[in-house]
Amino acid sequence: MHRIITIGREFGSGGRELGKRLAEELGYAYYDKEIISAIAQRSQLAEDYVNQVVENQIHTYYPITVAVSMAAAPEDTVYSVNRSIFSAQTEIIQELAGKSDCVIVGRCADHILAEMKPFRIYVYADMAYKLARCRANGEAGEDLSDKVLEKRIRSVDKARAQYYRFYTGDSHDDRLTYDLGINTSTIPIPDAVAAVAALVRATK
Amino acid sequence: MHRIITIGREFGSGGRELGKRLAEELGYAYYDKEIISAIAQRSQLAEDYVNQVVENQIHTYYPITVAVSMAAAPEDTVYSVNRSIFSAQTEIIQELAGKSDCVIVGRCADHILAEMKPFRIYVYADMAYKLARCRANGEAGEDLSDKVLEKRIRSVDKARAQYYRFYTGDSHDDRLTYDLGINTSTIPIPDAVAAVAALVRATK
Repeated sequence: MHRIITIGREFGSGGRELGKRLAEELGYAYYDKEIISAIAQRSQLAEDYVNQVVENQIHTYYPITVAVSMAAAPEDTVYSVNRSIFSAQTEIIQELAGKSDCVIVGRCADHILAEMKPFRIYVYADMAYKLARCRANGEAGEDLSDKVLEKRIRSVDKARAQYYRFYTGDSHDDRLTYDLGINTSTIPIPDAVAAVAALVRATK
Repeated sequence: MHRIITIGREFGSGGRELGKRLAEELGYAYYDKEIISAIAQRSQLAEDYVNQVVENQIHTYYPITVAVSMAAAPEDTVYSVNRSIFSAQTEIIQELAGKSDCVIVGRCADHILAEMKPFRIYVYADMAYKLARCRANGEAGEDLSDKVLEKRIRSVDKARAQYYRFYTGDSHDDRLTYDLGINTSTIPIPDAVAAVAALVRATK
């Protein structure tokens, strides 16, 4: 069975950079946004729409309780589309994990691949770090105030948390959803990558 | 300035073992229960009593709100004694940290030594692991059922959390109170120690 590393992360914490560097260090495949493109292709939906559903909007359609009683949920179009997206995502992630050792960022991969016992990392940081990182990466318009940018960061994190909870029934607030939590506002990403790579090699 | 590593931990998660092995690996001093003895000596109180206050009972005397308005708190004996214990603990931990590189388990050392920017680790595990570990270490009477032992584990954790919150105003539920979170039910302690030692060396 291939070795899988999943990365959950707060927006702006550098989870993607950590994942990418870790994949390079270990010689693993790396999957992030390409999963969205693959879902779009398979579900014949626009990539932007898939991204919105996966990253942001699922929670605006149905309350969390729907997840526990899917059978009773109304079968309207938006709901069905969201279900097809998650179903395509599940298939694609399982296929990727079946191909080779890999690092997968986000997309509930830790839950989808639970049987493969992935090494589950959660990356987080304090707000000052996340603000600075979003600005440095040009992810924020220069005209945005810290207050507005902070609001945006919190809103993305809230949406991700709701998406994760919707499909897994769990919350990353529960530490047991991951094996290692890394605070990138205090641990430099390259150092974290070296340590995690050593740990992955040791526990393989 | 010396390099300090602090370990917060759930009861039964193996935080002490991890801390001790890490200290050995790095050649650092290791402080855990000896802090209780030192406090007892300095405050001229019985070691058992100090241990009860530090580990278990502080929260039964005063609600958390007292911590935010110490000036308004009644100056009765129990309260004063608890304050002297924390004050002796603070002094002792600062003295130890001033002596050499070290690993300190518990006792709000992360908060007391915040200015020294300690490397803050939090060790946790799932209940099955903690139950098994408590039994293996003989920390549980053989006659205790899983249910009773689980209740005891939760109660120690609750008391530790309240003690931490009482004196620091923070909660370990907030990941930002630590730099690295380690789930010992999935990462073997020796592997975690090797990785953390490498990380500490890299970030020194």
